[in-house]
Amino acid sequence: MTERELRVSKIQDGTVIDHIPGGQALNVLAILGVGRATDDTLSIGMNVPSDLMGKKDIVKIEGRELSQEEVDVLSLIAPDATINIVRDFEVVEKHRVERPEQVVGILSCPNHSCITTGNEPVESRFEVLAEGVRCHYCETIVREDITDLIGVE
Amino acid sequence: MTERELRVSKIQDGTVIDHIPGGQALNVLAILGVGRATDDTLSIGMNVPSDLMGKKDIVKIEGRELSQEEVDVLSLIAPDATINIVRDFEVVEKHRVERPEQVVGILSCPNHSCITTGNEPVESRFEVLAEGVRCHYCETIVREDITDLIGVE
Repeated sequence: MTERELRVSKIQDGTVIDHIPGGQALNVLAILGVGRATDDTLSIGMNVPSDLMGKKDIVKIEGRELSQEEVDVLSLIAPDATINIVRDFEVVEKHRVERPEQVVGILSCPNHSCITTGNEPVESRFEVLAEGVRCHYCETIVREDITDLIGVE
Repeated sequence: MTERELRVSKIQDGTVIDHIPGGQALNVLAILGVGRATDDTLSIGMNVPSDLMGKKDIVKIEGRELSQEEVDVLSLIAPDATINIVRDFEVVEKHRVERPEQVVGILSCPNHSCITTGNEPVESRFEVLAEGVRCHYCETIVREDITDLIGVE
């Protein structure tokens, strides 16, 4: 592919998250804590043509290498994502996302009576099921619309 | 600048919104109605280096030419933005944003007692002041944090 076809150009140092399902890039940003007032330098492609996926999203964050924990959480919305760690324009590490056993923080329980949604200093915690997630505290299960649980700054 | 330095590549047809204040791209998307489930093809650069602005954001939407009304609303958060309409890789029109007299829809009144925030079928309407906006119905004035009034899907 030429640079023109790539739509989003190469970065010098940072992380490239590729093969995100089309339209999910804003949810990926939310998971990574990139809110409306971010200082991070990012390039984002949304709904760009992909041979493999039809349409895909791609997110490039400069100067930041994602931890395995952050990568694992991405699996909930982007199970086929590939993570490329880039240094000096070269890909030095390539990861596939892996489904974690649980997710701490990041997601908010939809149950307003849950201890994690009140004023108590209790961080949210979800067990990851084959399909969906279950709140560790109130056992509410969310199978679809997991993206609704992602807080946006 | 080379393609590499551009970070976000050229598009064939659509609109390029350039010189957005750094970090405001997600608010620009909200104004344009681009939510988490968008079908639009977009390229977004956030906090990329700019000679003029230090850091800037840039948003490219393919296959869509923004109306003057949409452009005007952008002035509230990106007063120095430039709008380039692109056809077949060439810029065919260039607009500066202009501050509109009022904004209908798009922003939500922060006053929970306002008629526009209840169940009545009344669209929000704000007069644009020299600094900030004033609700046409309840006269609530918001000077800062206008971006908090932008609903995200």
